[in-house]
Amino acid sequence: MRPSGRKTDEMRPIVIETGVTRHAEGSCLIKCGDTQVLCTASLDERVPPFLKNTGLGWVTAEYGMLPRATHTRMNREAKRGQSGRTQEIQRLIGRALRAGVDRVALGERQIVIDCDVIQADGGTRCASITGGWVALRLAVNKLMKAGDVISDPITDHVAAVSCGIYGGQPVVDLDYPEDSEAGTDSNFVMTGSGRLIEIQASAEGATFGRDDLDTLMNLAEGGIAELVAAQKAAVGG
Amino acid sequence: MRPSGRKTDEMRPIVIETGVTRHAEGSCLIKCGDTQVLCTASLDERVPPFLKNTGLGWVTAEYGMLPRATHTRMNREAKRGQSGRTQEIQRLIGRALRAGVDRVALGERQIVIDCDVIQADGGTRCASITGGWVALRLAVNKLMKAGDVISDPITDHVAAVSCGIYGGQPVVDLDYPEDSEAGTDSNFVMTGSGRLIEIQASAEGATFGRDDLDTLMNLAEGGIAELVAAQKAAVGG
Amino acid sequence: MRPSGRKTDEMRPIVIETGVTRHAEGSCLIKCGDTQVLCTASLDERVPPFLKNTGLGWVTAEYGMLPRATHTRMNREAKRGQSGRTQEIQRLIGRALRAGVDRVALGERQIVIDCDVIQADGGTRCASITGGWVALRLAVNKLMKAGDVISDPITDHVAAVSCGIYGGQPVVDLDYPEDSEAGTDSNFVMTGSGRLIEIQASAEGATFGRDDLDTLMNLAEGGIAELVAAQKAAVGG
Amino acid sequence: MRPSGRKTDEMRPIVIETGVTRHAEGSCLIKCGDTQVLCTASLDERVPPFLKNTGLGWVTAEYGMLPRATHTRMNREAKRGQSGRTQEIQRLIGRALRAGVDRVALGERQIVIDCDVIQADGGTRCASITGGWVALRLAVNKLMKAGDVISDPITDHVAAVSCGIYGGQPVVDLDYPEDSEAGTDSNFVMTGSGRLIEIQASAEGATFGRDDLDTLMNLAEGGIAELVAAQKAAVGG
Amino acid sequence: MRPSGRKTDEMRPIVIETGVTRHAEGSCLIKCGDTQVLCTASLDERVPPFLKNTGLGWVTAEYGMLPRATHTRMNREAKRGQSGRTQEIQRLIGRALRAGVDRVALGERQIVIDCDVIQADGGTRCASITGGWVALRLAVNKLMKAGDVISDPITDHVAAVSCGIYGGQPVVDLDYPEDSEAGTDSNFVMTGSGRLIEIQASAEGATFGRDDLDTLMNLAEGGIAELVAAQKAAVGG
Amino acid sequence: MRPSGRKTDEMRPIVIETGVTRHAEGSCLIKCGDTQVLCTASLDERVPPFLKNTGLGWVTAEYGMLPRATHTRMNREAKRGQSGRTQEIQRLIGRALRAGVDRVALGERQIVIDCDVIQADGGTRCASITGGWVALRLAVNKLMKAGDVISDPITDHVAAVSCGIYGGQPVVDLDYPEDSEAGTDSNFVMTGSGRLIEIQASAEGATFGRDDLDTLMNLAEGGIAELVAAQKAAVGG
Repeated sequence: MRPSGRKTDEMRPIVIETGVTRHAEGSCLIKCGDTQVLCTASLDERVPPFLKNTGLGWVTAEYGMLPRATHTRMNREAKRGQSGRTQEIQRLIGRALRAGVDRVALGERQIVIDCDVIQADGGTRCASITGGWVALRLAVNKLMKAGDVISDPITDHVAAVSCGIYGGQPVVDLDYPEDSEAGTDSNFVMTGSGRLIEIQASAEGATFGRDDLDTLMNLAEGGIAELVAAQKAAVGG
Repeated sequence: MRPSGRKTDEMRPIVIETGVTRHAEGSCLIKCGDTQVLCTASLDERVPPFLKNTGLGWVTAEYGMLPRATHTRMNREAKRGQSGRTQEIQRLIGRALRAGVDRVALGERQIVIDCDVIQADGGTRCASITGGWVALRLAVNKLMKAGDVISDPITDHVAAVSCGIYGGQPVVDLDYPEDSEAGTDSNFVMTGSGRLIEIQASAEGATFGRDDLDTLMNLAEGGIAELVAAQKAAVGG
Repeated sequence: MRPSGRKTDEMRPIVIETGVTRHAEGSCLIKCGDTQVLCTASLDERVPPFLKNTGLGWVTAEYGMLPRATHTRMNREAKRGQSGRTQEIQRLIGRALRAGVDRVALGERQIVIDCDVIQADGGTRCASITGGWVALRLAVNKLMKAGDVISDPITDHVAAVSCGIYGGQPVVDLDYPEDSEAGTDSNFVMTGSGRLIEIQASAEGATFGRDDLDTLMNLAEGGIAELVAAQKAAVGG
Repeated sequence: MRPSGRKTDEMRPIVIETGVTRHAEGSCLIKCGDTQVLCTASLDERVPPFLKNTGLGWVTAEYGMLPRATHTRMNREAKRGQSGRTQEIQRLIGRALRAGVDRVALGERQIVIDCDVIQADGGTRCASITGGWVALRLAVNKLMKAGDVISDPITDHVAAVSCGIYGGQPVVDLDYPEDSEAGTDSNFVMTGSGRLIEIQASAEGATFGRDDLDTLMNLAEGGIAELVAAQKAAVGG
Repeated sequence: MRPSGRKTDEMRPIVIETGVTRHAEGSCLIKCGDTQVLCTASLDERVPPFLKNTGLGWVTAEYGMLPRATHTRMNREAKRGQSGRTQEIQRLIGRALRAGVDRVALGERQIVIDCDVIQADGGTRCASITGGWVALRLAVNKLMKAGDVISDPITDHVAAVSCGIYGGQPVVDLDYPEDSEAGTDSNFVMTGSGRLIEIQASAEGATFGRDDLDTLMNLAEGGIAELVAAQKAAVGG
Repeated sequence: MRPSGRKTDEMRPIVIETGVTRHAEGSCLIKCGDTQVLCTASLDERVPPFLKNTGLGWVTAEYGMLPRATHTRMNREAKRGQSGRTQEIQRLIGRALRAGVDRVALGERQIVIDCDVIQADGGTRCASITGGWVALRLAVNKLMKAGDVISDPITDHVAAVSCGIYGGQPVVDLDYPEDSEAGTDSNFVMTGSGRLIEIQASAEGATFGRDDLDTLMNLAEGGIAELVAAQKAAVGG
């Protein structure tokens, strides 16, 4: 029995509000249950030095949590520097989103995705990827509308969901009470057409077998489908 | 003529939504026009070392801006460290709020106010003080309801407003287009009963006279009254 | 009764020795009672990046305290980094001095004012502004004498004094025993012609009224006049 | 065709020399082809603060590369701080090794595994895990021989291997020329009995399907078996 | 011919003013020609952790330069952190002064010597040692007068002088123009009775022979004798 | 009697293995008894900014210790930053090696010497200099063979040895048990022809006389001769 009463393959309610900030080229507030992440896409006409004069674009991400996004207040990273966990997550988000982008079609420009967790209840990195894609999509729409980009550089949807083994039972979309108790913890990043972009599966307590991984992946595929549907609804197609 | 078409003594619309996060002991989202600041109050039963065993409480504040709260994206402070401006602002917020608190009545505990700017359009430090007070009030209400604090440690409202000389004309509650052009820039922090807590007035281009300061203070008194009314409405009295 | 026996409007003795270091383009040691600050002006023909090719000059300031300038030894900032207080003070000094400079007349060059507190007894930021102006004046004299600057970019004197309410009594030019007990603490930066550049007034214990501010400003005007007279004597007119 | 001429399921030669440093409680130099990592295990009778008085032990890891372990010299991390990549790797190593340890049996003490890359040719994180386990095993042997630990806290072997899709072909144990070109990059951490501890699979260029993952996992199982055999030979059983 | 016209064995004028700051337990301003260093001794009743409960005292030093102590302004170390050179110098000063102290007689307390260069013209580390000893002597006198220390912990004078080979000619007490051109650069730290505490000799351009070292040491002995005489005059015996 | 049973003028066995890493332009592993340092020379065609367009080359060094090179594990400098001791040592190594290089003949390029201590048993800085020279020699040989450098920029051997007064007895090449007890500690850097490059001699407990320094230098000359012979054997002449 899951603490929330959900079925093993039941996602939390997904809400994606777009256009939530005045300044960003693309933005959304994504809510997966009580997890809320504000995602913005900022266009930067300068690329990082290693891409100068290559004609290739870049998509990168930064991730942060407001200090009181969590049950007990965390230290502010602006004061102590980014933790290893934060750096790991933002590297994942950037890598995941780039997998859905044709960098030649994007042209030599950079889009920076900022994912800031307003409220945390498990699954913040997955919500960041799913919401980050929406912000990216909206910013690219703007570029295309302005004629700055001709051929659509976005090749497919990118979304992510966590799965885990909680109380011996494989479940999808873990909330914080589940996440903090799960024996195996995994994150799946997939495209809209069901191809894999990234899998991270980790034994937190007990090790797991190939069959467990299979079950988790089945759950993930179902969850990703729902997330992609929500993305489509949010960006109007 | 102000860019927004407002009259010289006209404040932007003030909206204060309370209870916006699940975890914090007190919280609000304050909107002063397009400026939006999320304010949370976190209770910490440990005080800073210099207050150990004094019986005195403490209120402190931290301030941050999401990287894309502004027109063009700013660097993330978690990566480069807090700027001098950020530190100056958070010191001001803490000092201002402490001026409205009886630290003996609060008892030996700390309340940390986090002010995170979601969207910036001028006046973020003032909105942080005004909204920070609401979060503080709600957290203290919780302490009193639980019987952890007997006598109300909050002695009065604390609110803040900016005034400036824009185009030669003294105006209240500057938005970003005004703020970036103003010849004199000032912030007034006052109590609900109209006493002064802090004045910061600075010549950005031309110097100013005592008569100018008087005019700015008149404008500020009007603005503060509106802000205090909004605080009262938000916290139910 | 003030601890030093001074009258409420009585400044501490002001001594300004110029030419105290061999290397700096302008320098002075300013003593306001037991507060001693060494101020140097360094000419830098390069401006900060944001001013490149604008034709505009820049004046900036840095502030520091020797570790044993104070009653008990402080940590050395070179080891732990600059505190928020230090950054706040040096931003104030730079802003104040720029208010007395015509940046077009200065031309595209930078003058860096270093204010290092040799001995502290209250009022170090005010002494830094008053002494910093003298160092700046001397460095500009050198530029003009060399023909590098034609029209005098210094538009007026800039000086600063602290005022406060000590023991319920408004007083001028607080020394450390007063400063650490004062109910309201304020700093006034003014020009030689009595115009205001910056006011910072802060309730440390009790709040204050508009009438209090008026009294403090009257005291400040008297103090600034004495400081400007000392500046004139120091720079020979 | 692989650049090294290896077959798709052919591992590089594995050499594990133990007892390579005089001071460490356990140590080995592991060579996987031209990749060489020095692994040491240091016993620390103090645990991290969050484990004080819990009776539980801890295993943690740190990872570094000598500046000229690579084709072109990298900056020394002691001068610029640890990169996100380094932190991500050392978190993985620690997590992987803890999965093979009974922390109750270890008792309230910490073992720190240092993995320093002497020469890099792909697969340094995997070699660090495989070699780190050997150092850990030797240090625990010492604890058991001294009677400080009674029941063996090591529950199984832990080893790791990389797999990837190179030139459209799934291959095991990528060297640097393969790693820098691979379309999909994955690391598998497994126990001696073939259970999974961690999977990280990432599309670097093209996305991948579930069938690809299956093939990679088959390759990994073969590689892990060889690594575990080498570990057994190294530690004498 | 030396730039200053001095003879090869001629020291610059030495001036040591004591009691130059109100707060420090011991202080002096030492001038060796145009080099000026402010030295303060601060008593701290707490020792560093590694000396807790050993009964042994400690003497340590910190060194800094005001940004415009030099011909061209240097960056402020409070902003960029202490350079390797600064750390090397302050380690030398502390080591040198400890060589003249009986740490048992001092008792479990620490004396911190701050050496801040007000004006630099070569030989700042030597002046810091010589002046630092005076500040230390005065602080210890205070401790003895108060009865906190019974037997004098200072076993001998400690002073330092630089020597070098300038224009092929061995000379004593190099000023900046000599120092920047010298082929061999050396610093000698000695006691009042002529014993050696530290020698640092370094070929800057050409290597040197044992005979050169002998000549430099002869020069140093003469210089140290003058410095010790100045110390005696400054502390009254 | 020395702990190792060596005679007072007896060096530890010296072993220098060259070509120990695949990537570096020059490399060796130097063993002086149980002290082992891996030295690599990396060629960088870019010089530091202050040498741009001067035609002069540069040799610099960086030094590090693996955390468990020592008896008890030290903190990793990549996590806490380089200590003052580390910076002091690497500055010494670079300075020493430059004294044996004709920077005009080297041409406008840089060679970076990395010295990483694999195992420490006293004398790591001396071993780094002696081994660093071998790596430098090999890298320069490569440059000359390729015709990039015509005239040999290496003017002489550079080697270093420590001497000290242990148990009242002057001895050469201190190991850790001696080093930690020695009354006087010194390092001599010399050329192959017996000229001095650098002397650092320091009283750790008792002061020392000129006669002591003479004896230590005699010991050093003998040790250096053995080290230079080992260098010659290693580089083939």
